[in-house]
Amino acid sequence: MEKPTKYMMVIDKIKEWIDNGDIKPGEKIYSENEMAKMFNVSRHTIRQAVGELVHEGLLYREQGAGTFCSSTPKSKNNISDQTNVEKLRGKNIGIITTYISDYIFPSIIRGMESYLSSKDYSLILASTDNDIEKEKQCLEAMLKRNIDGVIIEPTKSSSYNPNMHYYLELEQKNIPYLMINQFYSQLQPPHIILNDEKGGFIATEHLIKNGHEKIIGIFKTDDLQGVYRMKGFIRAFRQNQIPFFNEMMISYSTEDLDHVLKEKLENLFADTNNLPTGIVCYNDTIALLVINILREKGINVPDDVSVVGYDDSYLSEASEIKLTSITHPKMQMGIDAAKWIVSTIENNNNNEQTSIIYEPELVIRNSTKKIN
Amino acid sequence: MEKPTKYMMVIDKIKEWIDNGDIKPGEKIYSENEMAKMFNVSRHTIRQAVGELVHEGLLYREQGAGTFCSSTPKSKNNISDQTNVEKLRGKNIGIITTYISDYIFPSIIRGMESYLSSKDYSLILASTDNDIEKEKQCLEAMLKRNIDGVIIEPTKSSSYNPNMHYYLELEQKNIPYLMINQFYSQLQPPHIILNDEKGGFIATEHLIKNGHEKIIGIFKTDDLQGVYRMKGFIRAFRQNQIPFFNEMMISYSTEDLDHVLKEKLENLFADTNNLPTGIVCYNDTIALLVINILREKGINVPDDVSVVGYDDSYLSEASEIKLTSITHPKMQMGIDAAKWIVSTIENNNNNEQTSIIYEPELVIRNSTKKIN
Repeated sequence: MEKPTKYMMVIDKIKEWIDNGDIKPGEKIYSENEMAKMFNVSRHTIRQAVGELVHEGLLYREQGAGTFCSSTPKSKNNISDQTNVEKLRGKNIGIITTYISDYIFPSIIRGMESYLSSKDYSLILASTDNDIEKEKQCLEAMLKRNIDGVIIEPTKSSSYNPNMHYYLELEQKNIPYLMINQFYSQLQPPHIILNDEKGGFIATEHLIKNGHEKIIGIFKTDDLQGVYRMKGFIRAFRQNQIPFFNEMMISYSTEDLDHVLKEKLENLFADTNNLPTGIVCYNDTIALLVINILREKGINVPDDVSVVGYDDSYLSEASEIKLTSITHPKMQMGIDAAKWIVSTIENNNNNEQTSIIYEPELVIRNSTKKIN
Repeated sequence: MEKPTKYMMVIDKIKEWIDNGDIKPGEKIYSENEMAKMFNVSRHTIRQAVGELVHEGLLYREQGAGTFCSSTPKSKNNISDQTNVEKLRGKNIGIITTYISDYIFPSIIRGMESYLSSKDYSLILASTDNDIEKEKQCLEAMLKRNIDGVIIEPTKSSSYNPNMHYYLELEQKNIPYLMINQFYSQLQPPHIILNDEKGGFIATEHLIKNGHEKIIGIFKTDDLQGVYRMKGFIRAFRQNQIPFFNEMMISYSTEDLDHVLKEKLENLFADTNNLPTGIVCYNDTIALLVINILREKGINVPDDVSVVGYDDSYLSEASEIKLTSITHPKMQMGIDAAKWIVSTIENNNNNEQTSIIYEPELVIRNSTKKIN
């Protein structure tokens, strides 16, 4: 796999083309092969970079025709450039998510943006990096601004949240808020979430139905999403009467992602004679990390080990081995969240609907395989 | 209030009488007045010490008649003396709770003991002090012993529990387990709990119905019990349309109990012109702590500030100001837990019943008052 710097270099270069007007809205960009030669990197790297830019909204794909420059080329920058956007329009919606420009978040935020801008609302974006202290700062900043509503993705939702009173302050000020992906239970807030327990269950059951018994689950447990996926993982074992075994679950926190988790996995896969046959991952990022470590050890996915991702992100198709993953409506969640907040504001903070729960589905690709 | 050492001294002295046979099973002990003179302490201290011993099962009260020595004088020691008990009987039930001999735990454990011993089961007690590492040690120790079932009160249940695999190991070994007070959600275990959300709600609504609006809630948030009580507290505000205000909720962890919380409360009550009119406490221990701090400042409970406890423990009647508190069946929980585990073992690990949820009730005493 190419170093991340090459991937970033490609992204920066394409952004430069767009910013300079070298590629104009609606114009087709170079093919993967052309760019691979141009930048002297693998097609895999090009595919990942283009995937990222598609998810940021700078490029779009047309089936069979190729990849094109979007009609709102600087959309991502516009969103982040808060002061500009605010001055243009009347009503402001604050958006606080753990991340903004990574992974599945651009899709969710594009969904919000598409609906909110059509209704002449502007977005004020802020991210917490899944850090409680940063969430506090975001909430304080939002409360100081003249916002009309807030959409929030909780931070470290599997522990007690000490910023509870800021949410109560929002209520006190009659500013409606909606939580997405998960919610803090004490507040019983309106929420739009995914049935993550079911997602964990169907990811695991897919492996069980394909003859796997020695299945490991890797879950991020500082967010409730991971706690629920783990719950579904355990239920799949129980319901199918698959025996439990030691170290069948690996848990990690946001802070562990850079080093600790990689070390844990290296140790886990050290004895190549004693590997699991299947691995259920918290998300696609972890699935790719696992596949990478296995590749370094000469272990083939899916021939030796099957790996299931989660989120059906752009990563699931950008990698060499296309990931079997759990899909859910990401952009739709953004749209639905935006619709909810606008309708609540326009009905004087009344909204009968207090929750939407999406059902996840399995997408089978090449990272999983039947065994005997 | 007397120093805790005096209280402990009285307890030790009475235990000594029982151990030496100075007071025999069924014999009445000295009156509160007599002992107060004897030990040169207040009647209040005597009442607390006797309350504790009643809850430990060493003494029992007969209404109108006085307090007597129990027929199984060394019952508490016998329970803790694990090897002795184990040799006597055939089947062993492990009990892992956060605490054993404090607060409401003696009542719960006596309930278990009374049923289990009647069925010729013995108890192996262990406590975690609400520490994850100690829970791990307890579980490892239980798994090494020849236990037939385990009753567990979760440790730090509002965060992810890293000892999950020990519970799966219990399942793998076909050892039934039951969780009490709360449960780890991933495991979906059979459980016997209290509706703590409702408890928090009725404690708060009691104050609201008595004209209070500036009500503070103090909750322990490293256990789900406290998280749910806080949830009920917030719901009572919302449902009665009481305005939220800053610092209406104080949260603390097990480790904060000794110093941090006391400091927080001292600060909170520093400005005696700006006091809340009502305080909802996580439990009776906190209620007494609050009353103490207020007393030091010359603030009267309930004339100036109303205080609600929780658990209806022996403390609620032992203190000078009898506590309005939330009551729930403590000994019955122990009996029900013991019945469940015995019936599950005797039905080859099958039990249709997977949960019991008790409804809490308010007991109104002297620590709360109507205001205009």
